[in-house]
Amino acid sequence: MVVSAHAADFVWRAGGAIARCVEDGGSVTVLCLSYGERGESAALWREPGATLETVKAARHQEATNAAETLGAAIEFLDAGDYPLTVTDAVLDALVALFRREQPDVILTHAARDPYNLDHALTHELVLRARMVAQAHGLPDRETEPLGAAQVLAFEPHQPEQCDFVPDHLLDITSVFERKHAAMKCMGGAQGHLVDYYVDLATRRGVQAVRNGAPRSVARAEAYMRTFPTVGSSLW
Amino acid sequence: MVVSAHAADFVWRAGGAIARCVEDGGSVTVLCLSYGERGESAALWREPGATLETVKAARHQEATNAAETLGAAIEFLDAGDYPLTVTDAVLDALVALFRREQPDVILTHAARDPYNLDHALTHELVLRARMVAQAHGLPDRETEPLGAAQVLAFEPHQPEQCDFVPDHLLDITSVFERKHAAMKCMGGAQGHLVDYYVDLATRRGVQAVRNGAPRSVARAEAYMRTFPTVGSSLW
Amino acid sequence: MVVSAHAADFVWRAGGAIARCVEDGGSVTVLCLSYGERGESAALWREPGATLETVKAARHQEATNAAETLGAAIEFLDAGDYPLTVTDAVLDALVALFRREQPDVILTHAARDPYNLDHALTHELVLRARMVAQAHGLPDRETEPLGAAQVLAFEPHQPEQCDFVPDHLLDITSVFERKHAAMKCMGGAQGHLVDYYVDLATRRGVQAVRNGAPRSVARAEAYMRTFPTVGSSLW
Amino acid sequence: MVVSAHAADFVWRAGGAIARCVEDGGSVTVLCLSYGERGESAALWREPGATLETVKAARHQEATNAAETLGAAIEFLDAGDYPLTVTDAVLDALVALFRREQPDVILTHAARDPYNLDHALTHELVLRARMVAQAHGLPDRETEPLGAAQVLAFEPHQPEQCDFVPDHLLDITSVFERKHAAMKCMGGAQGHLVDYYVDLATRRGVQAVRNGAPRSVARAEAYMRTFPTVGSSLW
Amino acid sequence: MVVSAHAADFVWRAGGAIARCVEDGGSVTVLCLSYGERGESAALWREPGATLETVKAARHQEATNAAETLGAAIEFLDAGDYPLTVTDAVLDALVALFRREQPDVILTHAARDPYNLDHALTHELVLRARMVAQAHGLPDRETEPLGAAQVLAFEPHQPEQCDFVPDHLLDITSVFERKHAAMKCMGGAQGHLVDYYVDLATRRGVQAVRNGAPRSVARAEAYMRTFPTVGSSLW
Amino acid sequence: MVVSAHAADFVWRAGGAIARCVEDGGSVTVLCLSYGERGESAALWREPGATLETVKAARHQEATNAAETLGAAIEFLDAGDYPLTVTDAVLDALVALFRREQPDVILTHAARDPYNLDHALTHELVLRARMVAQAHGLPDRETEPLGAAQVLAFEPHQPEQCDFVPDHLLDITSVFERKHAAMKCMGGAQGHLVDYYVDLATRRGVQAVRNGAPRSVARAEAYMRTFPTVGSSLW
Repeated sequence: MVVSAHAADFVWRAGGAIARCVEDGGSVTVLCLSYGERGESAALWREPGATLETVKAARHQEATNAAETLGAAIEFLDAGDYPLTVTDAVLDALVALFRREQPDVILTHAARDPYNLDHALTHELVLRARMVAQAHGLPDRETEPLGAAQVLAFEPHQPEQCDFVPDHLLDITSVFERKHAAMKCMGGAQGHLVDYYVDLATRRGVQAVRNGAPRSVARAEAYMRTFPTVGSSLW
Repeated sequence: MVVSAHAADFVWRAGGAIARCVEDGGSVTVLCLSYGERGESAALWREPGATLETVKAARHQEATNAAETLGAAIEFLDAGDYPLTVTDAVLDALVALFRREQPDVILTHAARDPYNLDHALTHELVLRARMVAQAHGLPDRETEPLGAAQVLAFEPHQPEQCDFVPDHLLDITSVFERKHAAMKCMGGAQGHLVDYYVDLATRRGVQAVRNGAPRSVARAEAYMRTFPTVGSSLW
Repeated sequence: MVVSAHAADFVWRAGGAIARCVEDGGSVTVLCLSYGERGESAALWREPGATLETVKAARHQEATNAAETLGAAIEFLDAGDYPLTVTDAVLDALVALFRREQPDVILTHAARDPYNLDHALTHELVLRARMVAQAHGLPDRETEPLGAAQVLAFEPHQPEQCDFVPDHLLDITSVFERKHAAMKCMGGAQGHLVDYYVDLATRRGVQAVRNGAPRSVARAEAYMRTFPTVGSSLW
Repeated sequence: MVVSAHAADFVWRAGGAIARCVEDGGSVTVLCLSYGERGESAALWREPGATLETVKAARHQEATNAAETLGAAIEFLDAGDYPLTVTDAVLDALVALFRREQPDVILTHAARDPYNLDHALTHELVLRARMVAQAHGLPDRETEPLGAAQVLAFEPHQPEQCDFVPDHLLDITSVFERKHAAMKCMGGAQGHLVDYYVDLATRRGVQAVRNGAPRSVARAEAYMRTFPTVGSSLW
Repeated sequence: MVVSAHAADFVWRAGGAIARCVEDGGSVTVLCLSYGERGESAALWREPGATLETVKAARHQEATNAAETLGAAIEFLDAGDYPLTVTDAVLDALVALFRREQPDVILTHAARDPYNLDHALTHELVLRARMVAQAHGLPDRETEPLGAAQVLAFEPHQPEQCDFVPDHLLDITSVFERKHAAMKCMGGAQGHLVDYYVDLATRRGVQAVRNGAPRSVARAEAYMRTFPTVGSSLW
Repeated sequence: MVVSAHAADFVWRAGGAIARCVEDGGSVTVLCLSYGERGESAALWREPGATLETVKAARHQEATNAAETLGAAIEFLDAGDYPLTVTDAVLDALVALFRREQPDVILTHAARDPYNLDHALTHELVLRARMVAQAHGLPDRETEPLGAAQVLAFEPHQPEQCDFVPDHLLDITSVFERKHAAMKCMGGAQGHLVDYYVDLATRRGVQAVRNGAPRSVARAEAYMRTFPTVGSSLW
């Protein structure tokens, strides 16, 4: 389960994890709260005749293609961007989704991002929806309360400025081509970021090896946990 | 591999992890930098005729019994306590041990403890020894450089005052009787702590369940990672 | 003055402080923003025929009994839980209460709790209401502006995950039986927590002694200050 | 560009920077979100016959005089104080102003202030408005997207309690008389603060010299950056 | 008990607390680890014929006069400054002093000071000596182990840069004249600091009132606790 | 002035700043505390017949070539690595150098690096030497006390794990070829790092533009300040 503030965030930041999870036989649903239509579609707005509708439609298509490439289902809430507006309906929709999907892990933005408050708001929304979805007394009697799902923050654009400290480096070497292909789906709006995120995956891969991964790991994504892990072994 | 500032720390704080690792077929070596002879043996000093030698001997025996109960090998450096004195020889001994044992994980004290600077110094010593043991240019040509061993801090007595934030809750339910027995070995000097650490294990067990462990988890130990984890799945 | 997000929080987390204050001749008012009816009443929802109304009524009764046992007055705002909804009316009610009661100390939740955003929201609400209640220009001309009340956070369930660092350990030994009795009032919904909080009181008691309290201190509660203390002696 | 929660904040906290900027040939616009009419006008409320309108009018006049003294333009949003209420209209107004003024630097409150949540809310509002103003897809097609404006926090009343760490000490020696005159304009409401802020400017001046400023620096103001600086030299 | 890295620190930073404690009938011993002869005696070095001995002697005299003015005993270890050198003998001397004096509270420098590592080293030394002095097994059998003494950091010159957050504001109004007189004793070396610290006392006094002290409080000193307080009331 | 723990650190981490400073007409001295002979010369140790002397000699040559390429003077202290050993002589040498060179800015490692304690120790050494070099009472009467030099940390290998937050992004576009050439000088020992640091420079360049640098900026280096900046303008 991935909750993305804007339509493209899940591709750049968590595309490897999604593809990896699918490769391992899991199923992934991506929820885009908005299309990033106002704030992250500069290239589309430069096209002649661009309107809010054409931009949203283009972003919808791009994100759908990217999700398909990664093997994930995708849904959109169209809650508006720059600023993202979190109404009761948005919260309720997310709660319903959590109870329907019963995710073990939820990927979303980091808790802080001074460049982009939509990201921070999404993090807070996810924590709130997680809490509500765990309640036993919701009107919806047909779904089960959500369990203690882990919330993992994916990497923001400028991690140090966002208090983002990687505590898990995920090997995405085997699915990197798939992530690369998904990133290219976003070309209309944010094509200049592809190289940036290829380099980042390489950088995180080098760091993974420095932290004990096998030398065969060439690409990685960084994640930050919200809650402690539990288990019966130390690593 | 466990590095303990004083002879008893490894029992209270990491006894479950040791027993668990042994139960899973691993081997564990405990290194006690000192006997805690001056600072953590109040009961022994109250015995008539107590001298530094008798106290050390008693602590040596207790710790040896506890390690045996847990299934671990144990070594002592007798480097002095209150204050612990880290000489070049102590560092060299630790480096040699790391290269001989090639641990994947090293358990030790947290980085900060305003109540007990021996603990903080041990943490720093472990990081320094880990770094040195990784060097390719040591005079010792017969051992291999150490890999990227994880360093896990076990729980200090007053965790919040030590900036200790649990990021792994280890299920020790199945080995708790063994830990309990090991704790009782320390009776001469610090018997009053047994109840305290039983309660703590229960408390961490409740928290483990709150963070997603099965309800069968009744006892746990808390750990804090120094380095990010690496892997091919998200949890 | 205690501001509790849900009907039971004040019992587990601050029951000792309340009883202690009453024992010392003070008066305490507890304000419950909600009944915790949706999120913290799992046992009540398992009863046949449970509805939002029956659950609220049961929680109202339990909390009222607990407050009475502790010697405190209690009021309810019924603002909803999971999520708590802070309207202007809720803020106004709290401001009015602060100006009526003129508390020296306000006990409430900690500033951060990733498990329970209702708690964090309550903390923020209290700080906002405190600020508003200090204003000289409110329409209400009959009450005095609030003074510089201290805001103390009581202990969350998983303190380290909430950046909660105890900076005051309150001796509740003499009133612990009363707290115990109050905790038992909450049996219908959260009875399993009684043992947990008995253990916690013992643990904080041991730590109090470690920090200089007399050995007679057997039970304590932990608090975190928001503002500096002032005074004419150093301790 | 300065965004001030209440009508007087910009004078005490950033008056030197404003005067300095004007002296250097720049232009400065101050935006006051509220008049501080309820919470920061105690002296005005003590005048006989004071009403919300008279207090606001007095504050409007004082702040206008102060801005004029400093050489800045000033605008008011009258959004209410204690608590400040951030509606969509307030956000839109700020976005429009940012796009009209295209500021390189925005001065505002620090991110945290437990004494005064209006201040923290203003900081968050500024970051949100900055983000929105950078979007390419706003309905307003006549203004350009805002660039990467720096956001500098000016000094809160109790900096340490607000996590405020000065990372820039601005020499205001040459314009201090002007700031002093502007502070005196606020006499009706907050005259007692003039001495306090004179002392503070001296204190920050001493510290500036300690950090390498010439000995001629006698008065300074402290600022905290939100974003990294960029440039082609190291200092 | 006050532990001061250099001969004058205790005057500027803790003079009020010392005088206050003496006024209340307590006894205070000041320990100066060095004279600050190399690093904090610029004015003395400018005198013709200055040598290390003349500077030390002058500083010895000044500090003795200041301590006498405050009503405190004073001792010097002459351990060298810039850099302070902490040998085993220095640690042993401090441990012996702690066991002889059995202080309830120890005042010293903050844990961090990037401008002056002698200060940070003194803080660490105090924590280490406190720990050693608590040990039951020291060779010295004639003194009792130290109890759980609180360690309070007094205010560094640039508090925000030193992570210094005041959590206690001590009213020194009634003894301020005495502190002022003591500060003037340091005239030879650091006379320019008197005004600075008068202003600081006023500033902290204003803040004390803001945090609930009576309006009669005009001067204060700021302190930061190392350990939690314990007690039977909430404030 | 650059202080590098090992012979190559200054190239990877600060080569651009050095070249930039030289290009702007400044002079730069690099001080290598050690050759990194044991810990950062794996490739050299794999050569047949390698001894400590041959490795040191090779590293000496490489670093000298790199410094020459960058236009900097270079000196070596040969203080040993893994672990670096800071003796009084090392401190004295650094103090003497600071007083001789009178740097405005000192570049060195970050304050924390759990992977490499030599780096953290170097940071602490630099702060200590800076403090000592500022003292008026040093035996050396022929040099002037050092001024308030800024200490800038260059970027560690895994910045987030080292609490490294960039607060200055230095444009090195115009000198990048020179840095690239200097990095290639280190080929014998650490050639695999060249690509990594080319990518990093690109990444920091993209971020510089995001923070307001002109679009022509293609390569940058990140720095973290230790002390506040001072100046007469806000940016």
